[in-house]
Amino acid sequence: MFKSNVMVNAKLTDSKEVKQRFMGRALELAELGRGLTAPNPYVGAVIVKKGKVVGEGFHRKAGSRHAEIAALKQAGTKARGATLYVTLEPCCHTGRTGPCTEAIISAGITEVFYAAKDPNPKVNGKGAKALRQAGIVVHAGPMRAEAESLNEIYLNRFHGDRPFVILKTAQTLDGRIACANGRSQWISSSKSLQLAHRLRAEVDAVVLGSRAVELDNPQLTVRRVKGANPYRIILSTDANLSPKLRLISENRDRKTIIATSKQNLPEKLRNEAGLISWTVKKDTSGLNLVDFLIKARGFGINSILVEGGGQLATSFLKAGLVDKHVIIIAPLTLGAGIEAIGDLTSKDIGEAITYKQSRFTPIGQDILFSGYPQPRVLGK
Amino acid sequence: MFKSNVMVNAKLTDSKEVKQRFMGRALELAELGRGLTAPNPYVGAVIVKKGKVVGEGFHRKAGSRHAEIAALKQAGTKARGATLYVTLEPCCHTGRTGPCTEAIISAGITEVFYAAKDPNPKVNGKGAKALRQAGIVVHAGPMRAEAESLNEIYLNRFHGDRPFVILKTAQTLDGRIACANGRSQWISSSKSLQLAHRLRAEVDAVVLGSRAVELDNPQLTVRRVKGANPYRIILSTDANLSPKLRLISENRDRKTIIATSKQNLPEKLRNEAGLISWTVKKDTSGLNLVDFLIKARGFGINSILVEGGGQLATSFLKAGLVDKHVIIIAPLTLGAGIEAIGDLTSKDIGEAITYKQSRFTPIGQDILFSGYPQPRVLGK
Repeated sequence: MFKSNVMVNAKLTDSKEVKQRFMGRALELAELGRGLTAPNPYVGAVIVKKGKVVGEGFHRKAGSRHAEIAALKQAGTKARGATLYVTLEPCCHTGRTGPCTEAIISAGITEVFYAAKDPNPKVNGKGAKALRQAGIVVHAGPMRAEAESLNEIYLNRFHGDRPFVILKTAQTLDGRIACANGRSQWISSSKSLQLAHRLRAEVDAVVLGSRAVELDNPQLTVRRVKGANPYRIILSTDANLSPKLRLISENRDRKTIIATSKQNLPEKLRNEAGLISWTVKKDTSGLNLVDFLIKARGFGINSILVEGGGQLATSFLKAGLVDKHVIIIAPLTLGAGIEAIGDLTSKDIGEAITYKQSRFTPIGQDILFSGYPQPRVLGK
Repeated sequence: MFKSNVMVNAKLTDSKEVKQRFMGRALELAELGRGLTAPNPYVGAVIVKKGKVVGEGFHRKAGSRHAEIAALKQAGTKARGATLYVTLEPCCHTGRTGPCTEAIISAGITEVFYAAKDPNPKVNGKGAKALRQAGIVVHAGPMRAEAESLNEIYLNRFHGDRPFVILKTAQTLDGRIACANGRSQWISSSKSLQLAHRLRAEVDAVVLGSRAVELDNPQLTVRRVKGANPYRIILSTDANLSPKLRLISENRDRKTIIATSKQNLPEKLRNEAGLISWTVKKDTSGLNLVDFLIKARGFGINSILVEGGGQLATSFLKAGLVDKHVIIIAPLTLGAGIEAIGDLTSKDIGEAITYKQSRFTPIGQDILFSGYPQPRVLGK
C-alpha cells in the first residue's frame, strides 16, 4: 500500500483538474519503477471509485505483475464499476504475464483513462480497442506529454532502425570536462553522480571511446541507485586495449563489448572470458557510427548512453545522431583543458545546435541541462 | 503609494517571521531603485504601527529624498511611536539632502531595524549611534545578507583601492561566445539582454578589449532598462582604433575612455571631441590590470563591468581580479569557436576556480550563473 497524496473533492470528480490529479498520482507511482523494469516501460495505475482511490500499483520489474494488475488486486471487489487511470495503454497480449485488458474487463472496470499509447506493435491501439469492445468507456489522456517523457526510452525503441541515443557530459561552466592531464574526477556533485548512475540503469548500453576508457579506467556499473548494469561498449578502431582495464578484467557479468573495425580482437584480448566483439565499418574519422548503431540494434540494444569522451560526443553530435543531450554543469571555471564538445564546423552562430524542450534543472549545487537536438541548418 | 503585499497578523507582530516580512517588503521597495540611484545605494523603508504599514518609501535617484524620508512623509503623524524598517543604516550627515537620523528622531519613531550597516566613513555606525543617543531602540538586522547582496556594488566601493569588478559573459552550453568568424549576436535571449543592460546601469564603467570593440562595434549604452550610461572603457595597448567605431564617433555624452600604454593617442583620434585617455603600465601579456584598476578608482570609478572578449575575461580571472562572475548560458551548442575563457594554467581539476554563493537562476530560456570567485590554490 502506498501513501497517496491525492486530495479528493467529490464535487470535482469529473473535472479536468481531478483527472489530472489521479493521472498525476499514477505517474508518481510509475516513477517508482524507474531504472528497474527494463526492457519494460515504467507504468503506474490508480483505481478510483466515487472519487476515492481504492487501488494503486506500479510495475516493479520485468516478469512481475503489471501496474494495472497490482492496482486491481488492491482494489479487490471495489474495482467493479470503478475508473482506472493508467499511464500507458494496457497490454492485450500474453508475455511473461497475461493480458491486462482481460483482467480489467473481468474485474468490472467501466471507464479507463490511459496517458500514452503503447507503440509496441503487439499493442499500439489494440489494447484500447479490446476494452471498448467489452463496453468500457476509454479515453486517451490526460497528461500524455508527461507520460511520454517518462517512458521516452521505451517509446523510442519502436522508432527507426537504431537505438535511442542519449549523450551525457559533466562539465565546468566553461565547457571543459577535464584538464589537459585528463583528470576529471570531482567535477560534479554527489547528486549529479547519482543521476549519472540512474541514467545508466535506464539504458541498455553505455558507450565510451577508447581514449576515455584508458584515461579514467571506469567500471560503468550502476552503483549509486538500484538497477541492472547496462552493456558497456568501447568504441576502438584498432581494439588495442590493455587487458588490465577494469571493463575487461572485471567483466564478470560478461557485458563488455568492443566495437572495432578489426575482424578479430588482438591476441592479448582473445583469452579474456566473455568479451564480446563487433566488427564495425570504418570511415575517414573513425568508426562509422551509423553502422555501429545498426549493429547495436541488431544485438537487441534499444537505448544507449554516450558517456564520453569529448571526441566521441563531438562525432555523435556532428553526425546528428543524438536524440537527447544531457549536460551536468558544475559551478567551476577550469580554463583551457579537454573540451566537452569539439569542432562541429559551425561557420556562424546560426549553425549552432538548437534544442526542442530545452530545460535547466537544479541538481545539488550543479545545474542539469536537457534537450532534444534539432536538425541543424548549415550554410544559411 | 505602493501596493503592499505584506500580510499582517497582529498576534505575530514581534516574531522573527513578521520582522522578516516587513524587512522583506523594504527590500522589495529598495529594488525599485536598482540602476537609478548611482552613486547612491538602493534603499527601501517601511514604517509599521501596531502591526500595520503606515508608510513606505524608496530612494529614487541621487539628490531626491532618501527612503526613510519618503516613508516618514507618507506616515505623517502616524510615525509617532512607530517602528521603522530600513534596508541600510540611516545616514547622519548632510549631503544633497539632510541627515535622515534627525528626521527619524523628530518624527517620533521609537524603534529602528536596519538590515545592513553603511560602510561609508561618514556613516559606518554613527547613524545607529545617533538614533540610540536620542533614546530610540535600534537593531542591526534582520536580512543583512539580502541587503548586502542588493547593494554589493555600493558596499564594496569602500573596500580597498580598486573598483568592484564584475565579469559578465554570454555563452553557449559548450562555453563559446562566438564562432571563429566572431559573430556573437543572438546567443542570448531578450530577457538576458535586458539583464545585461541592467548590469550596465548599475556600474560606473563598462570595460572591453579592443578586439571585442572592433568585432562587435557596440554602443555599450543602457537601452533596455531605465538608467544612466556608464563610462565606456576600451583597453587597447596601442590605441590603434578606428575613429569610425561607434564608441568614438557617437561619444556625445563624452564617456568613452581609452586605456592604453601610449603616452598620447594616435593622430587619427586626437581630434575626436571628448575622448578621454589614460596611460596604463604595460606588462608582458598586455596592459597591467592592477595599474588600470587603480587608475579607474582614482578617476572616481567604483565599479566596473568587464563585458569581453574572451581574452580580457581570461586575463582578469587569471589575475584574481574578478569580484563577481556572471555567466548567461544559452541553450545552444556551437562547437569550436571563440571560447569564453581561455587558458588559466590549471594543471589539475583542483586548480579550477571555485565560487562562493554560486547560484543558477532561470532567465527566459537561458540560465544565469553568478558567484564570487575564490582565491585559487595552485600546485596542490
